[in-house]
Amino acid sequence: MMREPTSPIVATTLQRLGESILEAVGTPPDLARIVAASLVAANLAGHDSHGVMRLPSYVEFARTGHVVPAARPSVESRHGATTMLDGHRGWGQPAARLAAETAIALAAEHGIGAVSVHRCNHIGRLGEYVEAMTRAGMMGLALCHGGPAVAPYGGRDRLLGTNPFAWAAPTADPQRPLVLDFATSAVAEGKLQVARATGQAIEPGLIVDAQGRPSTSLPDFYAGGALRPFGGHKGYALSVMVEFLAGALSGAAPSCLPEYDGSNDTLMIACDIATFRPLAGFVDQAARFYATVKASQPAEGFDAVVLPGEPEAQARRQRLEGGIPLPEQTRTELRELAAQLGLHTEDLR
Amino acid sequence: MMREPTSPIVATTLQRLGESILEAVGTPPDLARIVAASLVAANLAGHDSHGVMRLPSYVEFARTGHVVPAARPSVESRHGATTMLDGHRGWGQPAARLAAETAIALAAEHGIGAVSVHRCNHIGRLGEYVEAMTRAGMMGLALCHGGPAVAPYGGRDRLLGTNPFAWAAPTADPQRPLVLDFATSAVAEGKLQVARATGQAIEPGLIVDAQGRPSTSLPDFYAGGALRPFGGHKGYALSVMVEFLAGALSGAAPSCLPEYDGSNDTLMIACDIATFRPLAGFVDQAARFYATVKASQPAEGFDAVVLPGEPEAQARRQRLEGGIPLPEQTRTELRELAAQLGLHTEDLR
Repeated sequence: MMREPTSPIVATTLQRLGESILEAVGTPPDLARIVAASLVAANLAGHDSHGVMRLPSYVEFARTGHVVPAARPSVESRHGATTMLDGHRGWGQPAARLAAETAIALAAEHGIGAVSVHRCNHIGRLGEYVEAMTRAGMMGLALCHGGPAVAPYGGRDRLLGTNPFAWAAPTADPQRPLVLDFATSAVAEGKLQVARATGQAIEPGLIVDAQGRPSTSLPDFYAGGALRPFGGHKGYALSVMVEFLAGALSGAAPSCLPEYDGSNDTLMIACDIATFRPLAGFVDQAARFYATVKASQPAEGFDAVVLPGEPEAQARRQRLEGGIPLPEQTRTELRELAAQLGLHTEDLR
Repeated sequence: MMREPTSPIVATTLQRLGESILEAVGTPPDLARIVAASLVAANLAGHDSHGVMRLPSYVEFARTGHVVPAARPSVESRHGATTMLDGHRGWGQPAARLAAETAIALAAEHGIGAVSVHRCNHIGRLGEYVEAMTRAGMMGLALCHGGPAVAPYGGRDRLLGTNPFAWAAPTADPQRPLVLDFATSAVAEGKLQVARATGQAIEPGLIVDAQGRPSTSLPDFYAGGALRPFGGHKGYALSVMVEFLAGALSGAAPSCLPEYDGSNDTLMIACDIATFRPLAGFVDQAARFYATVKASQPAEGFDAVVLPGEPEAQARRQRLEGGIPLPEQTRTELRELAAQLGLHTEDLR
């Protein structure tokens, strides 16, 4: 059977579709705009696993009451250079965006600012929020924990979330900040779900089976196994750090404790560079660092040395220009979802 | 030839010896006390590579003018919840201790505080400073960069320092905080120096040769090779983060740029837990997290799951009680050093 080749989809089309879907399950338009923009921004950055393919599960969250679509984040308390937010179990992105904006405002006043969020749902790609801080001339940190899926180094029980961690710094080019954004697990659980759906093999080093033995057999993960932390005991320690800076500090709990409520508790810290030194000199150094690393010799087997954040900046340029090459499976799922909700999806061919 | 077995040395003996040696090269007694205490604390924590074995190189730093032994750190500027310190190229430990104390005071007032230090020498084991923050009911972060020794992921040129990173949180037991403290390189350069001196083999994954190929041959490192970051591209990104949060923010520079001055520029951030939630609930959760992980099942090939900071706490208990089992080579070097400086070392048999 011949399949008609699919063409890339422009971001604005996905944005409109995302808003319609989210509004159809009770999300106010302004919040739907924020959530959809966050998902589409992940697609634009090349991270389709955090993009619009999440919409079917998001709709399910709204239907089951896991997410309260009309809930709005609010400030719970303020003290000095810190603020605590309550996400009220609404969509995570508006809460995370408010956290980033609040951290920027606190840092502008105090030099550094920290914002902790509890009762928060999935906030999307962490890089989005620290990149926003670079546009304000700041360095940012973002940490977020989640339900247990990762075994400690040397262990076999699921005790830690995949616990992503992000940092960013501005360079002279606003389109090309330095951005670190990774799960502290060896692989994101979403990638295993993709492998499960497609029957792909998985690389060594990513999971352990129920006995804590390294495994490359995906069924082992679902039969009582666990993800491994990246980088051995060091990545494990970073994951523990995220459980406390993001999970415990928010007033919630590390996710292996019985009182954990399933929230993606989050911490954001913004640091105003100009408080420490003139920003112009900093971004000039960042640009020269970028160029120095870029011009350095690659190791055997590599074509070039890549900077943290470079692949995302490149994907964004390409996809803003040429559209987002959405996989056929995602298109089908979104078409079906839209049809269920009585929405028009002519653009999704 | 029979060798007389050496007995462990009590910490106070090493402390006195360290102070004498440091004073003999022009260090004022109060600063000598701080530097010696930091080195001995590293020995007590089981990290002999950061302990009194450093004294011969420290004396060399003083003799060559790399360190100005009588220099005292000072506050350069303050703004809101941030402070910048000038280490004046004196010993790093007094500057780092002042940074930690200042960060604690800032966090007590503002909820979070950040202190950046430039013109700073070797600050010792980073864990020391974040552990001090836990005793004030705070979580701490410490980052420090140094001269280029590490290749970027996918590269071969030395462009990054070994760039250590530390975090700690208090538990209900003040003797047993959670402590992360690691180099972002796959191995610390000091451990390669030990391997070079003893002719030990090195594990795979630690270095690349001058062509950027993975190597287990130590001479390759000294013939134009480089250390590798831990954990692939993730550890590399963390190392870049340290170059900017510790190096560039201080007003100095990432260490691969021509203006880098050889300083161990440092950033410390303290976060006052009680500003966010009652401390008692936090430390109770930390204690239960500790117990939960400790009681979890080890993976095949492991006897038990170890918590970040647990080995250090255990070494400290044992060595405070039974003394520090200093290697014969370190004893010999310290005896020779003391003799050169005309000091008494009867205790170092």
